[in-house]
Amino acid sequence: MPESRNAAPSRRRARLAAVCGLTLLAASSRGAALAGATAGQPGEDRPPNIVIITTDDLGWGDLGSYGHPTIRTPHLDRMAAEGQRWTSFYSQAPVCSPSRAALLTGRIHLRSGMFGRRQGVFFPDSRAGLPAGEITLAEALRDVGYATGIVGKWHLGHLPEYLPTRHGFDSWFGIPYSNDMDWRVPSGATRRAAMFHPRTDYWHVPLMRDETVIERPADQHTVTRRYAAEAVSFIEAHRDRPFFLYLPHTMPHMPLFRSEGFRGHSAAGVYGDVIEEIDWAVGQVLETLERLELTERTLVVFTSDNGPWLSYRSHGGSAGPLRNGKGTTFEGGMRVPGLFRWPGTIAPGVVQAIGSAMDLFTTAIALGGGAAPDDRPIDGVDLSPVLLGTGPPPRETMAYYRMGELFAFRLGRYKAHFTTQSRYGAPRGWMQPTDRSRIAGSPPTGRLEHDPPLLYDLGADPGERYDIAAERPDALAAVVAAAEAHRAGMTVAEPLFDLRGPERESAP
Amino acid sequence: MPESRNAAPSRRRARLAAVCGLTLLAASSRGAALAGATAGQPGEDRPPNIVIITTDDLGWGDLGSYGHPTIRTPHLDRMAAEGQRWTSFYSQAPVCSPSRAALLTGRIHLRSGMFGRRQGVFFPDSRAGLPAGEITLAEALRDVGYATGIVGKWHLGHLPEYLPTRHGFDSWFGIPYSNDMDWRVPSGATRRAAMFHPRTDYWHVPLMRDETVIERPADQHTVTRRYAAEAVSFIEAHRDRPFFLYLPHTMPHMPLFRSEGFRGHSAAGVYGDVIEEIDWAVGQVLETLERLELTERTLVVFTSDNGPWLSYRSHGGSAGPLRNGKGTTFEGGMRVPGLFRWPGTIAPGVVQAIGSAMDLFTTAIALGGGAAPDDRPIDGVDLSPVLLGTGPPPRETMAYYRMGELFAFRLGRYKAHFTTQSRYGAPRGWMQPTDRSRIAGSPPTGRLEHDPPLLYDLGADPGERYDIAAERPDALAAVVAAAEAHRAGMTVAEPLFDLRGPERESAP
Repeated sequence: MPESRNAAPSRRRARLAAVCGLTLLAASSRGAALAGATAGQPGEDRPPNIVIITTDDLGWGDLGSYGHPTIRTPHLDRMAAEGQRWTSFYSQAPVCSPSRAALLTGRIHLRSGMFGRRQGVFFPDSRAGLPAGEITLAEALRDVGYATGIVGKWHLGHLPEYLPTRHGFDSWFGIPYSNDMDWRVPSGATRRAAMFHPRTDYWHVPLMRDETVIERPADQHTVTRRYAAEAVSFIEAHRDRPFFLYLPHTMPHMPLFRSEGFRGHSAAGVYGDVIEEIDWAVGQVLETLERLELTERTLVVFTSDNGPWLSYRSHGGSAGPLRNGKGTTFEGGMRVPGLFRWPGTIAPGVVQAIGSAMDLFTTAIALGGGAAPDDRPIDGVDLSPVLLGTGPPPRETMAYYRMGELFAFRLGRYKAHFTTQSRYGAPRGWMQPTDRSRIAGSPPTGRLEHDPPLLYDLGADPGERYDIAAERPDALAAVVAAAEAHRAGMTVAEPLFDLRGPERESAP
Repeated sequence: MPESRNAAPSRRRARLAAVCGLTLLAASSRGAALAGATAGQPGEDRPPNIVIITTDDLGWGDLGSYGHPTIRTPHLDRMAAEGQRWTSFYSQAPVCSPSRAALLTGRIHLRSGMFGRRQGVFFPDSRAGLPAGEITLAEALRDVGYATGIVGKWHLGHLPEYLPTRHGFDSWFGIPYSNDMDWRVPSGATRRAAMFHPRTDYWHVPLMRDETVIERPADQHTVTRRYAAEAVSFIEAHRDRPFFLYLPHTMPHMPLFRSEGFRGHSAAGVYGDVIEEIDWAVGQVLETLERLELTERTLVVFTSDNGPWLSYRSHGGSAGPLRNGKGTTFEGGMRVPGLFRWPGTIAPGVVQAIGSAMDLFTTAIALGGGAAPDDRPIDGVDLSPVLLGTGPPPRETMAYYRMGELFAFRLGRYKAHFTTQSRYGAPRGWMQPTDRSRIAGSPPTGRLEHDPPLLYDLGADPGERYDIAAERPDALAAVVAAAEAHRAGMTVAEPLFDLRGPERESAP
């Protein structure tokens, strides 16, 4: 018997909160499921469907509801109006592979080896991938009866043993790594120039279904449209049981492609066209849920894997009022949109609480009636008290890693930078300077170490403009102490991103 | 007979559009009123109440609905959700007095002498004010039967002959000039330091009712609260006839004050407290309209007089993704929030069309059934086709003046800068550099002339980061030609801001 669509939100929230609390207390082993909360059983306690839509290099400021002046995102704005719009939601890393690893495992990427000393992400000649021993959200939810599917970019290892189908997903349609890797730019043209005038045959990235290449090069003009169609099919096919759909869009990572119908669609140029097509694709998901009467039993999340790629100028996105972008541990590099929509259960509003993409792991497992692994450290926290309005925000800190190193740390409203990148990915001179670092003039390209650290009040100064370390030694000391405690608890696996090329054949 | 609250929006819009179109065609002399559209007559054609709420130095990025991460503005966000949120709405000048003159007269401030060669605004020792010959929006609406009131800051001349009551307003409660003028900082303290730790007795600005000083120094802690109460009283007193309420808040101009109930209210510090109190005050107006059943017969507009005062760091506001702030002709200096709410008549949505505060003059007169003056150039255009959904946007250009000089010009999506200020009001090194001007390093404090001009695509690059003059000579030529045409049509009165002090007693 399907749950009444008229169930009072507060009653349903209270019931879910009870489930979540119980789940967290009862979680004792991988795969354990609570009696009565197992997915697949009809009735009151059928757990919600989980849809996590993420994007590639979309910035905090790229949606209408986050203040973009010229990009139109009516479907995402509707998600924001009907759900919670989080203003301090973070990807857990400022670049692709580690960010995705954290989202899917609930763990900071150092624990799973998803980093490198020389390489920041996986490449087409990488010999490694997400280790088999890691437990993904897909595995945890499949264990309690969810259908699991991924539509989109993986980027956690392209060799067969690392593919999504080996990590808990029943099905996959998408590309294995970034759309600008594996390229064949014609002689006489620079790769950078080709990025601005892309043709499908410049890039050789394959399109996969499950473990088979079905198209190479992938026709990138139509990937967003085809992802939408695949997502709709997945939802239709699994309408009668709980499902987890992970939908990591290939766009708006450079080179930018959009389908014919979105050419010139936006006042914001090609980048705007691409975002507006993603917004359309989100609309397809929402409309499908509505048509199948699944809206009130589905949590839909929208976010991004890191901040905007600023070096591509107006072909890259915007972090809005936040500083810098992708690849950096300034807010623009890691703070991203975070929309949570579940009508009838999540009360609409704007949320300033801190959240991380890796919290989606813990939260989804709690809502799904599963159990988070207890044989390893899990960094994600359960955000459902905030989503359901049943308790205080569970997260007070944020750890900002670049490669394998802790560059910055946030405690409440204060953030300390121990190390910064001055110009990663940003055009020359673009960065806003800090007061004390004296990088206003001609910032060097390398790293800058700060002793004492820079300190920003992210409440009064979300743009990280005004270093207050000298004025607030008490706040600085508190953040530094919290960072030290965090460091002391961190476990670090062997870095796997550096294992590249044929000379590395002995590697995993 | 009051108009049905259930009148179909489209029908009412069509009727109003007919009125507006007719008004523009029929406008032939000051004070002319259309038959059947005169204010004060009951029935179907009673014109709408007009409420224009503006603020002092509030930036484009300072509201939740414009993407501020930590300032909460639920009442303004409700205005945005229930009305139109304009993303390219401008104050007509980057500082206070000329901006207000343009709003109230529908004319670029050069035409009315509201500028100076040495002074940017009026001061407590100014000998001049808005000339008696200028026709304000209050006069134009009073001529067709509106009750007119101003609650808040005037700043168009403090001498008796220039006060609001001499310029068409039936009543005034507020202050004559900026709250940081006329100051008495104790010896041993710098004025700047006192700005950050303000006490009421540091500033000597008077509080006026009509033409009488009723309190000096004004207790600035309670001005926002008292403005709200005065606005409510005005609406209650005039509920039975059309009214025009102009509500220019004193805040968030430095020094910042808020009432006791808003101390620590915001996660964004004292500046956030101040904005959240203004938001509360907006809520008081909306609730009063609701209580008196005037919601559907009242247009409420919210905007600001110029961009944020960046030199006050986290005590100043934010332009969000836009460049620079108050005092400059970059977008951050003049592009401001623009909210238009009139339930049942204005269909909600986000509007990218260009609008200027001086268009409020022409638009309000059109909606009110009055006639814009035809004996002088009027620069404001009637925005009602966009508000009512009846026609294309009427404005394609924007002229950016600093003092008496045209610094920049926008045509459609392209903006050319002929001259820029490198650092007005911004902390050292804060500004984002331009590519070609080479001011990335250590920008000088003075003006920079650009030949060829800088060219930005405000669609794809709303933050004015990437000069494309070299790539798009066609677009540059078009903007330059439009600017030349604008210059050719400009009339310039004698500048009145420079007339200061006793030695100027022979001046007006």
